[in-house]
Formats: sequence, C-alpha cells, structure tokens
Amino acid sequence: MRIVSIADILKGCSTVGSEVTVYGWVRTRRDSKAGVSFITIYDGSCFNSLQVVVEQNHSDVLRLTTGCSLSVTGKIVESPGSGQIFEMQASHMEVVGWVDNPDTYPISAKIHSLEYLREVAHLRPRTNIIGAVTRVRHSLAQAVHRFFSKEGFYWISTPILTASNTEGTGEMFRVSTLDMENPPRTTSGKLNYDMDFFGKETFLTVSGQLHAEAYASAMSKIYTFGPTFRAEKSNTSRHLAEFWMIEPEIAFSDLSGASILAESMLKYIFKAVLSERADDMDFFSCRIDPGVIVRLQRCISTQFSQIDYSDAIEILLSSKHKFHHPVQWGLDLSSEHERYLTDQYFKAPVVVRNYPKDIKAFYMRLNNDGRTVAAMDILAPGIGEIIGGSQREERVEILDMRLAERGISIEEYWWYRDLRRYGTVPHAGFGLGLERLIAYVTGVKNVRDLIAFPRTPRNVSF
Amino acid sequence: MRIVSIADILKGCSTVGSEVTVYGWVRTRRDSKAGVSFITIYDGSCFNSLQVVVEQNHSDVLRLTTGCSLSVTGKIVESPGSGQIFEMQASHMEVVGWVDNPDTYPISAKIHSLEYLREVAHLRPRTNIIGAVTRVRHSLAQAVHRFFSKEGFYWISTPILTASNTEGTGEMFRVSTLDMENPPRTTSGKLNYDMDFFGKETFLTVSGQLHAEAYASAMSKIYTFGPTFRAEKSNTSRHLAEFWMIEPEIAFSDLSGASILAESMLKYIFKAVLSERADDMDFFSCRIDPGVIVRLQRCISTQFSQIDYSDAIEILLSSKHKFHHPVQWGLDLSSEHERYLTDQYFKAPVVVRNYPKDIKAFYMRLNNDGRTVAAMDILAPGIGEIIGGSQREERVEILDMRLAERGISIEEYWWYRDLRRYGTVPHAGFGLGLERLIAYVTGVKNVRDLIAFPRTPRNVSF
Repeated sequence: MRIVSIADILKGCSTVGSEVTVYGWVRTRRDSKAGVSFITIYDGSCFNSLQVVVEQNHSDVLRLTTGCSLSVTGKIVESPGSGQIFEMQASHMEVVGWVDNPDTYPISAKIHSLEYLREVAHLRPRTNIIGAVTRVRHSLAQAVHRFFSKEGFYWISTPILTASNTEGTGEMFRVSTLDMENPPRTTSGKLNYDMDFFGKETFLTVSGQLHAEAYASAMSKIYTFGPTFRAEKSNTSRHLAEFWMIEPEIAFSDLSGASILAESMLKYIFKAVLSERADDMDFFSCRIDPGVIVRLQRCISTQFSQIDYSDAIEILLSSKHKFHHPVQWGLDLSSEHERYLTDQYFKAPVVVRNYPKDIKAFYMRLNNDGRTVAAMDILAPGIGEIIGGSQREERVEILDMRLAERGISIEEYWWYRDLRRYGTVPHAGFGLGLERLIAYVTGVKNVRDLIAFPRTPRNVSF
Repeated sequence: MRIVSIADILKGCSTVGSEVTVYGWVRTRRDSKAGVSFITIYDGSCFNSLQVVVEQNHSDVLRLTTGCSLSVTGKIVESPGSGQIFEMQASHMEVVGWVDNPDTYPISAKIHSLEYLREVAHLRPRTNIIGAVTRVRHSLAQAVHRFFSKEGFYWISTPILTASNTEGTGEMFRVSTLDMENPPRTTSGKLNYDMDFFGKETFLTVSGQLHAEAYASAMSKIYTFGPTFRAEKSNTSRHLAEFWMIEPEIAFSDLSGASILAESMLKYIFKAVLSERADDMDFFSCRIDPGVIVRLQRCISTQFSQIDYSDAIEILLSSKHKFHHPVQWGLDLSSEHERYLTDQYFKAPVVVRNYPKDIKAFYMRLNNDGRTVAAMDILAPGIGEIIGGSQREERVEILDMRLAERGISIEEYWWYRDLRRYGTVPHAGFGLGLERLIAYVTGVKNVRDLIAFPRTPRNVSF
C-alpha cells in the first residue's frame, strides 16, 4: 500500500478514489449516531489534519483519544463536509500506540497557554502552533541557505568554542573539563587552566563574525549559520542564552553592499515563507496577529528607507511624540525610538546608518567625520531591530587606534590584524538572529516559543 | 562596470570581448620580456584562478606579490595559452591592499604542509586545498539540506546546552558562569550549582538524537544539522572536540527505513558534489587521492550490501586475513575489520546490522533474539564507519529494563519515556559526522583540515 503524507493528500497529490496508507496521530474524534466516527489525524507534514471516516464496528474506534498513533488505510474521496477538500474513507485502521491516562495527557485537544507548553516542550510540537512555528522556521532556514547559495556565498561553520570575545563586551559561558569541586591550582594558588582540555580559558562564542572575516578575506562571499550564546541574565521575551545567528560577510564591499544584501535576503525569504507555508501563515494571521501576512507583503514590495543616525535623531527631536528615554546625539536608539521611526514616521522597514563610534563595536569602520562608524541597524515595523551590521575597519593603523581606545591589547587580535596586513580589502556584513526573525514572521512574541528547547536563566530543562 | 566572479568568467558567463571588473587576490605573477605581466588572481568563487594580462607600464605591476588584493577591469578574451579557456586583458588595475613584508607572508605561492597551515588557520582558506575543502563542505551541506527538504523532513535545531547526556557515556564539556576562582558552595561545602546560570550542572551536547525523537514523535520526519562536542582527549586524525553532525529521525520507520534513507542521502549528496564541484574534485583526485572520484561514482551506482553483525563475524573468522584485534561475537568491530569487509570482501559500502546489545546504547531497539539490537553502521571503502544509526526502543517497559541494566534512573529520562507513553511509534534514525564525510569525499585524511578552525585537545587557537 502506498504510504503518503497528509500534506500530499491535501495538496491533491493522491487521485480521488485511490487507496493509500497514512501514519499519524489523533487530534480529535467525533462520533456520529449513524455508526461512523470522524477522526482528524495530523502527521506534522502540514498545518491541516486529515479527516478520516471510520466505521464504529472497528473495535478500537470508540476508544481513540487525542495523541494516539495510528496507521490507517483507505480511499481518498472529495469531502462532503466543509473545512477540507479531501478526506479518507478508512478500510483498515491499526492503533500503533495508545495514550496512557488520556485524562491527564498533557496535550489534550483544548487550547493551552504558551507558558504551559514550555513546561512540556518535548510534547509541544504536537500542537498546532508549535507545529506551525517548526515548519516556518524550517522554511526560513532553507530559504536563507538557498538565497546565499544562489548569490555565490559559501557557508562557513565558525567555531563555537573560542578563547576570544568578539564584542569585547557581553557575558560569556565558560567551557571546561576541570574538576570544579577540586580544581588544579598553580603554585600561586590560581586556577590552573593549563590543565584544562584546551590548556587555556575557553568560552562559547557570542558571534562568528571575526572568523567569518578571515574566510571572506579568501573566499570573497561567505556566511555563517549556527548557534551563538549570551550569558546575560535577561529574562525578556527577546532574549535566549542559546540562539541561532546568520552572519554573511562580503569582501570588496562597503556598508551599502551589506544593506542591499540584507534587503534582498529578507525579501527573498519572506517570499519563500509566504509561498511555501500559506497554511501556517493563515493560522498565525487568524490566531496570533492579523497583520503578519500584510506586513511581509509590504516588506517585499517596499524599498527600505535609508537614513543617517544623525537625521534619525533630528526626526525624533522634532516629533511631537513624548518618549520615555532621552533622545540625544551620542545615545543609542531605544525600542520606542525605533518603533516611532518604523511604525509612525516611515511606515516601512528602515536602515539607520552611521552611528556614533562610542556606542558601537571597535571593529566597525571609522567614517571620515571621525566621530561615526559605518554601522547599520535595520528596523522593521512592529518589532524594531531585526538586523545589525557594519562595514569593518580594514585599515590596520585605525584598527589599532580603536583597539587602544578600548584598552584591548593588539596581541590578542594578532590574527585579526593579519587580515589587514596581508591583502586587506574593504568588507562588510551583518548579523540576523533567527528567532527574532521568526517572531517578526509569525507574530509570536516570545522567542522561547520559536526554538525547540529554549535555554534561559535557570532553564535548561529537557 | 559589471563586477563578476571568476567562477562566472571561467564558466563562460561573460561574453568574449565584454569588459568587466574582477576583485580578488594575486596568486602568482610572471613577467614577460615583451612588456606584459601575467597575474593569476583568485577570488574563492571556484578552484581555478583567472589569468590577467597587464602592461608593465602600470606602475604597480612589478611590485605585486602573492596575496595582494586587486580590482582589475578589462576585456575577457579567449586565452591563447594552455591551462585556461578565458583570460582578461586588463585596461585598468588598482591595488586595494598590499602585503606587509612579502618575504615573510605566511601563504607564499609554494606548497605548504597541512600541519603548517593549521598554525595559520586564519589565512589558510587562501590556499588551493583549503579553498577547495571549503567549497566541497558547502556543497555537501547544501545538498544535505536540499535532500531532506525534498523528502519532507523538517530541520530542527536541537539544543547545544543540556543537562543530560545522550549516550550515558562519553566525556562532556561543562558550561558555567560561576566564578571558578571562588565558586559559591553549599553549606555542606559542595559546589553550589543552584547559583549557576541555569541553576544546575550544564554540559555541551554530544548528540541531538533524544531531542530529535521528541520532534519526530510529532512532525514525523525531521533532521538536525548542528555542532556537537566530545571532551575525549583523542589526538587522532579522526577526532575533533567540536564537529558538525546530521541526525535524521523518522517516525513510523524500522531500521530498514533508516538504512534506505541513509543510502539515498549519500548517493544524492555525492552526485551533487561531483556535478557542482568538478574543479575541486579534480584537484583532490590529482593531488590528494587518485581514487576519490571513482569511489564516489561507485558508491552512487552500487547498491549497498547488507549484512548482519553475526554474519560479518563469521566472514572475518573464516577469512585468511591476520587481524591485530580479536574477532569474537560480542566484541565491537575495529577499523581493520571494517576495512576488510568493505575493501576486500564486499568492495562496496556495506550496512552492518543487529549488533550485540551490550556494545550499543540503551535506546536501541531490542531484537526478538533478546541479545542483539536494531543498530546499523554503514561502512565505506577506504574510510570505515561513516554512518551509525538504529531503530529506537519505542516500548516503554523494555526501555525501562534497558535503563535499569545500565543503572540509569528512569526519572532522569521522564520526558524521553513520555514519548513512549503517549502515542508511541516505531522510529529510527542515524547520525553522520560532516567532517568524516568530507574526508571520504576529498581524500584529505585529517579532520582538522576539514573544518574552518579545528578544536582539539590543547588547541582552541583563533
């Protein structure tokens, strides 16, 4: 018997009248008085369930509950009911796995809060919402890979374990194999990292950018796509201790090159998700945020606005809007400022460029004015910053000056400086957090619901 | 002026006679007495360099050395010389970045040992070999994503940070934010992990499989593709502390389903790399291992052999071959045994199935004989084990028994057991290490040369 996915059946890939087998799990059961039951089955392949009509004389039918796994064989027919085009008339049904104590099954057919679902993260992909998030995440990730591949970028896996700290700031997780109860110490009584696995203090990466620059300085166009880590104790809906980042880096490019790349990447992946995940996006639009689809469509069809940070400050200062945080040249934009620019002023995604050098990282390229750097943040309506990027300082003498300003020793960055000493090139890139991107696409606000097993302060469950 | 990649020029995408601009780095310079110089330029987009013919009256030409970055504009012409179809007649050349002290440039045009190149890992992608490895790695990774996508699998990012240990064995890296010099202690004097970032002991994952099973139990077909970690002090050419793994998991599947999937995946990605990376594969075939291309072609066209572990033991026992390691039912196969099976006996990839339960992990499904489990290793000629997989134990009572045998508490695996308590299904999957796969494909033996910045005992440089 041909085994098919529910996605294929609902797309009409199985001829009406043909007999096929479906594997899946029961979502609901409804018994009619006419001696048949209507079982809806999901298999994760798509948002919608398949309705299966089964004779009640099958001994197990009336014992089926949400979550039971089934193998069902039957004929695909056009559905007389509303809500689906095709359904299955079952000729054979087998229960593969029952549910222990259906009354206490954690994923009953009712609606559960997202907070509750995090406590059963191992079962939550069985829900409509987490299933939809999983498929959207997949489509976005695939589209990212396809986009960069077609643009001639090579994927690089930059290291997760590192002895250095990209930003020069930010709290990092330490990685060790030392016996922490009784660690080896040097004669002076300090912890002896020389005895550790790597022979020195080691951390989890906060960004692959510096390593990405090394590869861009040889392969021209590359990108990273991997997990990154922050040990900040931020208990907000926008922070994870472990999240996935995409970081392209382009040699022979200035900031505009990175901005153009970011805009075309976002448009490409938004188009992909709208076309591939229409069923899931309908769900997010109906149940989570009615604006999600229009927002993506607008983003696809609108040219992103471009503005200098200094002009953005002017706009904010001359607005009638009352802000909680101070607006002043030299201070970073806060969320409310960003939201004002995107939601009220431009009503479109906006690229803010050329920030004051003192609020940005040391590696960003110093502009000719001596007080700003070639940095950009891409702000999106409804969410704020979605991409941060910059042109990198390719001039070794200015890089050294910037390191000195921050009190960072140039020895530590010897290999990063080498990239400037040997055939240096102007280059630029940006970083995009995958979970925040999914938040923007789905309207689901909390990033903890957008990664399979979220890691946050005091939470490393499962 | 149109900016084009060298890959596009060499593929003939630029009409002969058209004028284009190329950005790249000098590989070699040869001066003719006729007043022109031949500069070969690479940009990482493909294996071969572009030959550029420049008049020596350009002031910088005779100062160019390996590694200088250039912008060159000129006409694409058919090359009169051998070795390339197209070359460029430069009309304008600009040096973007010089090389400090060309005499000590670490990546001079001569051939360097792979050991030396690891010491300059930030510059080694500028060499032919590491450039080729990078492009092959990219093509394999992309083909993996494409393969699973077209087969209806969803990509899941299973967690890197975990409080549990998949295999129940294997040394793990500990992750912490505690002040190790002066850690908080409980009243009994023990380290107080309650004060740590996650409030408990936390490690880097050794496999995403258990988490992958949770998602397969809802989405049916999923795969992971991410970094994994081993803290074993193995200083061999086949071990990395940080490496990338691909782990598909299929619901409603037995071991044969996983074996069929693995075979078609390998064939798909080998076809992709042969067709997309012909230039790089030619290099590996000429310079590293003359057998690489034929080996992949044979793997694509041969049906993989299938054999039970018990029969493999019989074959080894009855062979005339003298083995260093003992051959005995109940012992694991060593590399020499695997190599005998693939290289001498089958002369093809072979799937060895149904291993003794005591040498395999607790989660592998117990066969009816009570002494073997539904595990498989796929062995490839010339390299040995390339894939390891199994059907998972989906019967909660047998899982509990297996956990008890290993002395593992069932409480620790509460959520893993839940997958068996609620709509359990037969399921199977496998794991494939990306770097070992690249070793097989390229013939480059040491996995340290197959990942951008390798991490091994006492080495976390860059």
